[in-house]
Amino acid sequence: MKHLLIVAHGSRREASNDEVRRLAERIAGLPEASRFSSVRAAFLELAAPSIPDGIQQCVDAGATQIAVFPYFLSAGRHVVSDIPTEVAVKQQEYPDIDIHITPWLGSADTVADLILQIVKHPEHTA
Amino acid sequence: MKHLLIVAHGSRREASNDEVRRLAERIAGLPEASRFSSVRAAFLELAAPSIPDGIQQCVDAGATQIAVFPYFLSAGRHVVSDIPTEVAVKQQEYPDIDIHITPWLGSADTVADLILQIVKHPEHTA
Repeated sequence: MKHLLIVAHGSRREASNDEVRRLAERIAGLPEASRFSSVRAAFLELAAPSIPDGIQQCVDAGATQIAVFPYFLSAGRHVVSDIPTEVAVKQQEYPDIDIHITPWLGSADTVADLILQIVKHPEHTA
Repeated sequence: MKHLLIVAHGSRREASNDEVRRLAERIAGLPEASRFSSVRAAFLELAAPSIPDGIQQCVDAGATQIAVFPYFLSAGRHVVSDIPTEVAVKQQEYPDIDIHITPWLGSADTVADLILQIVKHPEHTA
């Protein structure tokens, strides 16, 4: 039972938080996401669920493995320190569940390809 | 002479700004970017060059067309208002140059695919 948790910063602007929730739903709907029992969104601050609550939702749903994906562009304090700290607390609470943090969005080499796709085919956007 | 300007928020953490500059260089090195005479980075605040200065660099390099790409995850105030305002000032200054803003990063449907690639092949990251 592998679950994917998309972690965003969270915004006072609820529309931005909804964008992230819709993104999680869109990912869940992709054929390649079938190996995940669920794809959920969680937020570092300003929106719900929090990271611990998001992890707990996965645990309650029977997760044995949880991939935490930082939906962040750069490796600032949030990616380097805040997210790992919150994840570590839940990992300690559930030592038998494998909770790991994946590379953050901005770290992917393929972001460059994606940008070229966007500026070439702007119609392929939400 | 088409130029691409990658516009990021800008950070007090210079390493984050350098990540964006390296991203612009990486894009410039891709075969599909050959239709752009240059790919540069610019910043809304906290880092140089500013958006007007970045556009000016393109103009000075002979641009007839400038694509401004918002390297942002959500359509907050910066994407909806601040970037368009700064671009409009330069567009007014150079009415014969086509300066247009492309969809922002987070708007692309394919971000979902990219995220699945990252969580599947974490080794494919910088």
